[in-house]
Amino acid sequence: MLPVYIAGCGMTEFGRRREGLVELMREAAARALRDSPVAEIDAIYVAAMNPEEFTGDGNLASGVLDALGLTGLPALRVETASSSGAAAFHAAFEAIASGHYRHVLVIGGKKMTHLSTSATTKILAEVIDAEERRCGATMPALAAMMTEKYRRKYRLTAARLEKLLCAVAMKNHLNGARNPYAQFRQPISREQYLASKFVATPLRLYDCAPITDGAAALILTAEATDLWVSGIGQGTAPLSMRERAEFTSFPATQIAARRAYAMAGARPESIDFAEVHDAFTAFEIIGTEDLGFFSPGEGGDAIEHGRTAVDGTLPINASGGLKARGHPVGASGIAQIVETARLLRGSADVELKREPRRGLSQSTGGLAANNFVTIVERRRDGTRVKNLWPGPLAVSQPAPIGPVPLENVINEEEEEEEGKIETFTILHVTPDGFLPPLGLALIRGRRGSMIMGQAEHIDSLAIGKTVYLRKTAGIYTFTVKSNLQSVRA
Amino acid sequence: MLPVYIAGCGMTEFGRRREGLVELMREAAARALRDSPVAEIDAIYVAAMNPEEFTGDGNLASGVLDALGLTGLPALRVETASSSGAAAFHAAFEAIASGHYRHVLVIGGKKMTHLSTSATTKILAEVIDAEERRCGATMPALAAMMTEKYRRKYRLTAARLEKLLCAVAMKNHLNGARNPYAQFRQPISREQYLASKFVATPLRLYDCAPITDGAAALILTAEATDLWVSGIGQGTAPLSMRERAEFTSFPATQIAARRAYAMAGARPESIDFAEVHDAFTAFEIIGTEDLGFFSPGEGGDAIEHGRTAVDGTLPINASGGLKARGHPVGASGIAQIVETARLLRGSADVELKREPRRGLSQSTGGLAANNFVTIVERRRDGTRVKNLWPGPLAVSQPAPIGPVPLENVINEEEEEEEGKIETFTILHVTPDGFLPPLGLALIRGRRGSMIMGQAEHIDSLAIGKTVYLRKTAGIYTFTVKSNLQSVRA
Repeated sequence: MLPVYIAGCGMTEFGRRREGLVELMREAAARALRDSPVAEIDAIYVAAMNPEEFTGDGNLASGVLDALGLTGLPALRVETASSSGAAAFHAAFEAIASGHYRHVLVIGGKKMTHLSTSATTKILAEVIDAEERRCGATMPALAAMMTEKYRRKYRLTAARLEKLLCAVAMKNHLNGARNPYAQFRQPISREQYLASKFVATPLRLYDCAPITDGAAALILTAEATDLWVSGIGQGTAPLSMRERAEFTSFPATQIAARRAYAMAGARPESIDFAEVHDAFTAFEIIGTEDLGFFSPGEGGDAIEHGRTAVDGTLPINASGGLKARGHPVGASGIAQIVETARLLRGSADVELKREPRRGLSQSTGGLAANNFVTIVERRRDGTRVKNLWPGPLAVSQPAPIGPVPLENVINEEEEEEEGKIETFTILHVTPDGFLPPLGLALIRGRRGSMIMGQAEHIDSLAIGKTVYLRKTAGIYTFTVKSNLQSVRA
Repeated sequence: MLPVYIAGCGMTEFGRRREGLVELMREAAARALRDSPVAEIDAIYVAAMNPEEFTGDGNLASGVLDALGLTGLPALRVETASSSGAAAFHAAFEAIASGHYRHVLVIGGKKMTHLSTSATTKILAEVIDAEERRCGATMPALAAMMTEKYRRKYRLTAARLEKLLCAVAMKNHLNGARNPYAQFRQPISREQYLASKFVATPLRLYDCAPITDGAAALILTAEATDLWVSGIGQGTAPLSMRERAEFTSFPATQIAARRAYAMAGARPESIDFAEVHDAFTAFEIIGTEDLGFFSPGEGGDAIEHGRTAVDGTLPINASGGLKARGHPVGASGIAQIVETARLLRGSADVELKREPRRGLSQSTGGLAANNFVTIVERRRDGTRVKNLWPGPLAVSQPAPIGPVPLENVINEEEEEEEGKIETFTILHVTPDGFLPPLGLALIRGRRGSMIMGQAEHIDSLAIGKTVYLRKTAGIYTFTVKSNLQSVRA
C-alpha cells in the first residue's frame, strides 16, 4: 500500500450561505487547490448526503466537475449519511494507495439552511430505521435516549449530567470563537446554555449541532508532503436502536479506531489532539471513551477537569467541533481533517500546549451506524514513511446472509404486553405529523425483544419502569404500569 | 497496484419484483457468496442512484449491511447516476488493489416499478442539467436528439436509421430470450418494433431500455481466481448538452476506454465480446464506435451484417443488454460485469463462435456524463498476472477552477434572436407539466452559444433550419423561420 499524503486543504466559512451547493463546493476546492503544490488532479471524489432532496442536485459528481472546469476527469460520489465526507476521503485514500491515481481532490458539502427546520429534520431522519421513524424518532430523540442511558449507567444525577454537557458546549463555543470558519464565533455562558430549550430531554438546543451550509476540500497525493495520512479505519453498527446491544458507547467508533490505530502503529496515548463528531454534546464524551482516550464513564471527568480544552493534555474539537463550527452534513468528515491539518501545521488560530505531531478525527454516519477514524501525522524531517497496514483486521463476523429477524413482537390482536423501559426521551421538537411533547422509549419486551414505542402519558417515565405495550395501526404505544394502576383505581 | 480478481457473482431475475430494494440486494449478494470460494468479506461497496426518492432508503450502505447480517464491516455507497454500479465496482477495485481490503462485496440494485412512469421519468430526469430540464427535456429526449444528429451526420435516411435501430432491438431481444435473468425473454419481430409508439422521435418504445427492478453482486478479491480484472477506466463529459462539442459520439466513453485499454495492455481488436450500455438502441451503435470496435458511422453496418450478433465476430450484449435484460439503474453497471463473467466462464446460456478470453463492459452515467469501461480476462493456466498500469493517463486538462460561463444569451427584454437547429426531437412521453407532443431543439445562436428551446409549432423541424428564439419566464421558445413567414404572410 503506497503512503498517502495531504497536499492542500480548504474550507468555506460555515453558516447560513446564499450560494448553492455546487458553488460552495467550488469555493472550498479553489482554496484547497491554492493551498496545494500539486496542480494536476487525476480524479475527484465528492461527498454529499441526499443532495437530490436537499437541493435537487442529481449526478452531483458530474455537476461539481463541470463547475470546476475539470470535465473529462473521473469523478464519483460517496455516501454514508452524515459521515459521507470521511467515507469519500477513505475511498480517495484507497485510490491513491493503490497507485491508480496520484492526486485526488476530495470535496464534501451541504446546503440545507434554505429549508425549514421541520423539512430538514424530516430528510435527515430518513437515515433512521423505518419502524423507529414511524414512532416519531428523530436523530436528537435517539441521541437523547443514549444520553439518558449513559447518565443512568454511570449514576450521574440530572444536575451533574447537565453540568458535563454544558461544559462540552461551552468549551466548543469558546474554541469556535477563535475559528474564522466557524458558524458560531461567540463563547456562551452557563446561563445561556441553561436558558436554551429542550429539544429532546436531557438534550437542549445548545447540545445539538446546528443546521449549516458549507463545504470542505482536501487534495490527497502520492507525493510526499509534510502531512502523512498514517491510519484510516471504518466500523459499523446496526441502523436501528432496537438491534443494538450497547446504548452507552458506539462499537462502530471502536472498530474504526482499532483499525486506524493498527494501520498507524499508534495507540490512544500517542494522539496529540482529536476532532470528535459532536453532533450532540454527549457524543463527544462517548466518542472520547470509544477512541480509548478515557475509560468508559470517565469522559465527563476529563471535560470537567479541562483535559480536553485547548490548553489541556488532549484538546478535543479545538476547532469548535460540529457544535460551534457547524455541521454541514457531508462536509463535516472532511472539515474535521482540514482542521486537523491546520492544527498540525500551526495555521489554526490556536496554540496547543505542546507542538502536535499526530491528530485524529472521528466521523459518525447516522446514529453511529457508519463511523470513520482518520489519523494524520506531521512529518518535519522529510523521512520516507511506510504503511504498517498488515491487511484488514478480523472483525468478529456473523455468518453472512443471516438477516436480522424482524419479528412482530405483539400481534395487533393481542391486547397488552409487558415490558421495561430501557431508555427514553421526551421530544419537544417533533417531526411533521407528531405533536410535542412526545414521549418515546426503547422497551425491552418480556421475551427479550426491543421495541420502540410512544408514551401515552409523558409523566413518570424512567429507565427500568414496567410498562404495558399495545400495537395500534403498526405503532407501539405504552403506559407506565403505575400510571395505569392509578387510572384504573 | 495489486491484481484484482472476481471470486463470485450473482444476480436476481430482472423485471417487476415484489421485493423491496434491500431484499433484492440481499438476494443478489447471497447468490454471489454461494458462487464464491471466498467466504470472508472485508467490506461492502453499495451502488444505488437516489434510493431516498425511489424507495425512501437513507443510509443504504448500512441498511444492506444489516440485511446481510454483516454489521460491523465497513460499508459505503457510491453514486454516479446510471453508472453507479460500475463506479462502485471501480472504487472496490481500488480498495483491493491498494491492499486495504482482500475481499470486497459489490452490490448494486434498484426498485422502481412501484412508481408511475411519470414519477420515475421525473426522478431520473434530475440528473439532467437544470436549464434543459426546465424546457421539458428527459433522458429519451436528449438521446433522441443525439440520434437525429447521428442520422444527419452519416447521411442516413429516416428509413435506414429505423432499420438499424430495429436491428439492435431485435438482436438484443433475441439474446435476452436466452437469458434466465432477463426482463424480456421473447424475441420481437420487425412488425412489433414498427408498431411500438414513438417516445421521442426518432426513438420508439422498443428503442428504450425498460423500467426494471433488480440487483446484481460481485465479490472482488486479491486471491487469484480464473477471472482477472485487467483494466478499468472512467471518463466524463459536461452534464448539459449545451456545453458539449460532440453530439454523435461520447467522449466520456472514449476516455474511459483509452484508460482501460492502457491498463489491460489491450486494444479494441483484442476484445472478444462486449456489454455496451444500450439504454437506447442508438447508444449501442455509438458505443461500439466509441470503444474503437468500428469506425465512426460504421456501427450500424456492423449490426446489419450480423457482426455483433451472438454468432458474429464481436458479440455485443449477448445477455440481451439493458434493452432486454432490463435496466435497474445502479445495478446495471454490475450486471454487465456479471454477464461478462458468465460468458467468460461459459455459464451463460449462449455459445459464442470462438471461446472468449477477454470481455469488456461499458456503463453510462446520465447522458454519458460519467462513463466506465471494465475489462475482465479469463485465465486458464493459473499464471500470475501483473498490472500494466503505468499511472494515470494524462487527460487534456483545462485550467482548474475555470467555471463554465452560464451566460444569458438573450435578455428577456430582447424580442427575438436568430439561431439554427443543431438537433431536435418531438417528445411524445412528456414529464408532468408538459403536454405532448413537445418539440425540443438544441439551437446554436448567432454568437455560437447553445440554447435548449421549446418549439412553438412542431411541424417543419429539421436540423440546420433557421429559427427565431424568444425567452419567456426563463424558458426559450422558438419558431422555424419559414413557419413564421407563412404566419406573417
